[in-house]
Amino acid sequence: MAGSNDLKLLGMWASPFVLRVKLALSLKGLSYEYVEEDLRTKSELLLKSNPVHKKVPVLIHNGKPVCESSVILQYIDEAFAGTGPSLLPVDPYERAMARFWAAYIDDKMMAAWNQASKAKTEEEKAEAMKQSFATVETLEGALRDCGKGKPFFGGEDVGYVDVVLGGLLGWIRANDELQGVKPFDPERTPLLAAWAERFWSLEAVEPQMPDVSKLVEFGKMLQARQAAAGEGN
Amino acid sequence: MAGSNDLKLLGMWASPFVLRVKLALSLKGLSYEYVEEDLRTKSELLLKSNPVHKKVPVLIHNGKPVCESSVILQYIDEAFAGTGPSLLPVDPYERAMARFWAAYIDDKMMAAWNQASKAKTEEEKAEAMKQSFATVETLEGALRDCGKGKPFFGGEDVGYVDVVLGGLLGWIRANDELQGVKPFDPERTPLLAAWAERFWSLEAVEPQMPDVSKLVEFGKMLQARQAAAGEGN
Repeated sequence: MAGSNDLKLLGMWASPFVLRVKLALSLKGLSYEYVEEDLRTKSELLLKSNPVHKKVPVLIHNGKPVCESSVILQYIDEAFAGTGPSLLPVDPYERAMARFWAAYIDDKMMAAWNQASKAKTEEEKAEAMKQSFATVETLEGALRDCGKGKPFFGGEDVGYVDVVLGGLLGWIRANDELQGVKPFDPERTPLLAAWAERFWSLEAVEPQMPDVSKLVEFGKMLQARQAAAGEGN
Repeated sequence: MAGSNDLKLLGMWASPFVLRVKLALSLKGLSYEYVEEDLRTKSELLLKSNPVHKKVPVLIHNGKPVCESSVILQYIDEAFAGTGPSLLPVDPYERAMARFWAAYIDDKMMAAWNQASKAKTEEEKAEAMKQSFATVETLEGALRDCGKGKPFFGGEDVGYVDVVLGGLLGWIRANDELQGVKPFDPERTPLLAAWAERFWSLEAVEPQMPDVSKLVEFGKMLQARQAAAGEGN
């Protein structure tokens, strides 16, 4: 617990970026006030706290806002260095590796997934899916080579990369149902598939994870809205 | 000087990302071996050191490679914490702010510039330029509000954000000549314009900066190559 520290998280239940922050706070054992935002009618507090991006998550610590999930995770790790486990390792080289793979997940893996979800023709979709699987296979290699048989990217315990990737797990499971796509396939990427099961079932993780059936419903609603907008054009 | 530390930088003279690393090493007073890469015929060392992205910069420290400029800058700061000035501040909140603005420069400002340079019609170009100036104005606000009248983003001394932005200065000056675009206009964004002059003329910075006329030549060559490739399609 953070004692006199006042922590408020502005979030949205289905956001994988907000989930990362929830996971980090849970792993560190920090208590906080959670404020659900309606992103169609953003609160004054959100607009004032994140005037640049106007997005969740925002973590407000003793009145001071921190934005962007990767910035927030590192902030939590540094501002609460004495509380709970560290997300980033101590060794500078291992810290660099963790930051490298976290950036890879955001810049390459998620970009490939977004490309796949925006594909307009079957050919485009097939190409994007190929790219997407290639990024997941690269990540499988990272878990094999860096993890050296350890259960998590962070080694024996979860760390920064686990939290960054873990935030996406709800949507990874939902997309299996929505699009019939299983990025962490036990056949193709057995280490990541086992990692996902292991991570999800952790005591500090499971209660934070979203209800996958609700994500599926939400995803269908978004697809329908996009289709309607597309027809309007 | 790094003593027994063996530092090798794989770079390419015109890369703004490589320049960031050169600037950080210079500011920290670290000596290193520089290896210029021919990006059309990448060396075995580059391919082996950065198998994921196959890009410069790569910093090899005692045989261990670190890739991606933002990861390298933070690595230099942490691995050589006792050598020269720190790039990131000590206070966790100020560190978060520095990481936020560094990410803003890469994700928003550079993205808007890239969009502008890829625009195909005059209308597209005008819209992209508008977006681009808006991101620079936001950054001007950051320098005004966070800097509180101090000469650098890092305060009295240059820091992480200064190095991230400073790496782009050569191309910013070259684009003035190539495209008639002055993103750091003394009229529009006087603080950034003054910052750019102040940063460039620092003793640890000036000798690292590229020859702008060579960047202009290189830019013209790239434009000609792109135009030729476009005609071939």
